[in-house]
Amino acid sequence: MSNESLIARRRTSMGPVYRLFYDEPVHIVRGEGVWLWDDGGNRYLDCYNNVASVGHCHAGVVAAVHRQMQLLNTHTRYLHENVVLLAERLGALLPGDLGTCMFVCTGTEANDLAVQIARVVTGRRGVIVTQASYHGNSALVRKLSTEGYPAGERPDWLAVVEPPDFYRGPYREDDPTATARYVDEVDRAVRRLGDAGCGTAALMLDTIWDAPGPLTPPVEYVHAICDLVHEAGGLVIADEVQAGYCRTGRWWGLDHYGIRPDIVTMGKPAGNGHPLGVTVTTPEIAAGFAAGGTYFNTFGGNPVSAAAGLAVLEAIENEKLAENAAATGAYLRGRLEDLAESNPRIGSVKGRGLFLGLDLVEDPASRRPLSGETMDRLASRLMREGILVGVTGRHGNVLKLRPPLVFRTEHADTAVAAIGKVLGED
Amino acid sequence: MSNESLIARRRTSMGPVYRLFYDEPVHIVRGEGVWLWDDGGNRYLDCYNNVASVGHCHAGVVAAVHRQMQLLNTHTRYLHENVVLLAERLGALLPGDLGTCMFVCTGTEANDLAVQIARVVTGRRGVIVTQASYHGNSALVRKLSTEGYPAGERPDWLAVVEPPDFYRGPYREDDPTATARYVDEVDRAVRRLGDAGCGTAALMLDTIWDAPGPLTPPVEYVHAICDLVHEAGGLVIADEVQAGYCRTGRWWGLDHYGIRPDIVTMGKPAGNGHPLGVTVTTPEIAAGFAAGGTYFNTFGGNPVSAAAGLAVLEAIENEKLAENAAATGAYLRGRLEDLAESNPRIGSVKGRGLFLGLDLVEDPASRRPLSGETMDRLASRLMREGILVGVTGRHGNVLKLRPPLVFRTEHADTAVAAIGKVLGED
Repeated sequence: MSNESLIARRRTSMGPVYRLFYDEPVHIVRGEGVWLWDDGGNRYLDCYNNVASVGHCHAGVVAAVHRQMQLLNTHTRYLHENVVLLAERLGALLPGDLGTCMFVCTGTEANDLAVQIARVVTGRRGVIVTQASYHGNSALVRKLSTEGYPAGERPDWLAVVEPPDFYRGPYREDDPTATARYVDEVDRAVRRLGDAGCGTAALMLDTIWDAPGPLTPPVEYVHAICDLVHEAGGLVIADEVQAGYCRTGRWWGLDHYGIRPDIVTMGKPAGNGHPLGVTVTTPEIAAGFAAGGTYFNTFGGNPVSAAAGLAVLEAIENEKLAENAAATGAYLRGRLEDLAESNPRIGSVKGRGLFLGLDLVEDPASRRPLSGETMDRLASRLMREGILVGVTGRHGNVLKLRPPLVFRTEHADTAVAAIGKVLGED
Repeated sequence: MSNESLIARRRTSMGPVYRLFYDEPVHIVRGEGVWLWDDGGNRYLDCYNNVASVGHCHAGVVAAVHRQMQLLNTHTRYLHENVVLLAERLGALLPGDLGTCMFVCTGTEANDLAVQIARVVTGRRGVIVTQASYHGNSALVRKLSTEGYPAGERPDWLAVVEPPDFYRGPYREDDPTATARYVDEVDRAVRRLGDAGCGTAALMLDTIWDAPGPLTPPVEYVHAICDLVHEAGGLVIADEVQAGYCRTGRWWGLDHYGIRPDIVTMGKPAGNGHPLGVTVTTPEIAAGFAAGGTYFNTFGGNPVSAAAGLAVLEAIENEKLAENAAATGAYLRGRLEDLAESNPRIGSVKGRGLFLGLDLVEDPASRRPLSGETMDRLASRLMREGILVGVTGRHGNVLKLRPPLVFRTEHADTAVAAIGKVLGED
């Protein structure tokens, strides 16, 4: 089937809600590690996909899923070891008494359940999120995703604060009160939810602010906003769907801050592509939620999903992927900073570990963001150079580098060379 | 690990929200076709699980998933044939212009998205559901699941009608106006939502009323309530998560009624255990929804999920499982009706195809439902006889038989003999 015909048939059978990357959509047919191949045999270095986190078609994950699929796939109303082992291993990786795991199929379901839990346990409705946030797509979680709908449609129970962007936000790196002012946003949000009669049920805490960034604010900012929410009787929900599973060079984004949130949510990389999400909380909060009813997710935590989840944890440990994300991430960041010195359109290098962003600008003084058109053109040119990247950020001007965790320094060199070439030619 | 220890560790690592079937929980370790084996080597005839619909560990599904997992697993922002082929095949199986498929991971996500679509497209908020309904567990869909929370907590946009239960509901088989009176419930619901200023966005239409039943009302009832909702400008959402994929002896539950709903949702059996759900609508409605924003589900419709979905369709067709569900279902129903003649505690045999229920009563005259305690005892005794069944219904007194579709007449004989024995001994 030609790509033209495939695009037309896709449009007919899946409708206009679906988007394709790139001016000429890519038809990927094979993957291995950090590499993807299209239907014409062209090879691409994957600098974007965080779902196949331990590498495309990881042999250990494929084998574990295949073995379990041949044996049994049921659900959590029968006893099975896999889901218990996975819950125990995840709990052991999290701080404090965060160790009660509820299994779902997507990051959306994990966040939806987390907010349900927070509301039942606190008896309040209000939720605090950042501008340009993304947390998923259920009816509830879509409302928490401020990047996706007009500000005028925000519900009364939602309070929205500025993300802690010290390069591009209202309070910047040259303002010594910037951290305090970002904290103050959350303080005002808590008070506003109190005044509105909703109270604060939860703060959605990105542990890398991915949608507007990626942003990595100072430790004291994160501690201060968690304290504010706790003082107001709310729960802190750490959304680790992006940052978790060693993306930032540590097991969880929260590890960079030394905090203990009340609920942690996981998704994308949890099954290396197999649909698996997790909502983890403390025994006390889990008991409070259970007092308000049961929860059952037909596919969540089934023996095959749990096998995928266990295989991902094993791959990360056996292949030392946390260490690699930290080391290769630091190397890549250094190379990008070098590139920025000779390229004034790179306004700022953002992020940490293997989640980095280039904030691209018209000129460094004004920091005026590159246009969406230019960004799309750059991403498409990089694709034709054999490099897959993404575009993100509140102004759509951040080139996103978020490769599988098996990304090595030679891959970083290849990616940086191509970015330099394309930026230089544009 | 002993089962006692596994139960304790499960309780610690997964918390009290999880429930296990049976007084002595079963530790299933292997499955094949209609059979399951526990950790002690005991074999069970599975008369309950509809997720592994084409049979536990179906070789074709296992092979298709394994093949695709070795090749590639990405997402719908790159072109891939699998998801397009699956969308086209599903569209071809549905009536009229129902053929625009959006892919999610669970029945919950499918229903959540369906209601979001209905609300965007109609500009209204109100939804009509039945008493004792179950549609899933997201924050939104949980509200549509009236079996799970107190009536006092129902939102203003929800209108709740009596399910069309002609054996146990307020209007019964001896009342010639019963159908009209059940229809009238929906008429009143539409008017109430209009008065409340919400309007009618959608009717959640079970095409087998599974949670309260399973109920199979007359064709004219279903036509009449669909007409009422359409006249009010609302959409009909056929929830085929239970009835779809040949469960009732036809491809879809809606095929028994000759209706064309506006949205169809699918889940449980769609991937034979692989997390896959689908929301299907018409091109016009899909276009209306797309005008209000995009939708992207990271795992939904990925190449592996789509491979699982395609393999399920192939298994159903190659093995003539629709025909088998109709024929074996009719045979099983006949055997159960025979059993009912000699056993006064079987008040009514309900359902169709391979989704049957025994409404169990203290005595046939009063139709007083058997107690939950008795039902649990019966289900546990059947388990010890090697027969796995479920318990359902508004009063928790319906023994649910809903086996994999590869269930044959000899399995039906085995199940009916055991049910007769256990009912006789109790």
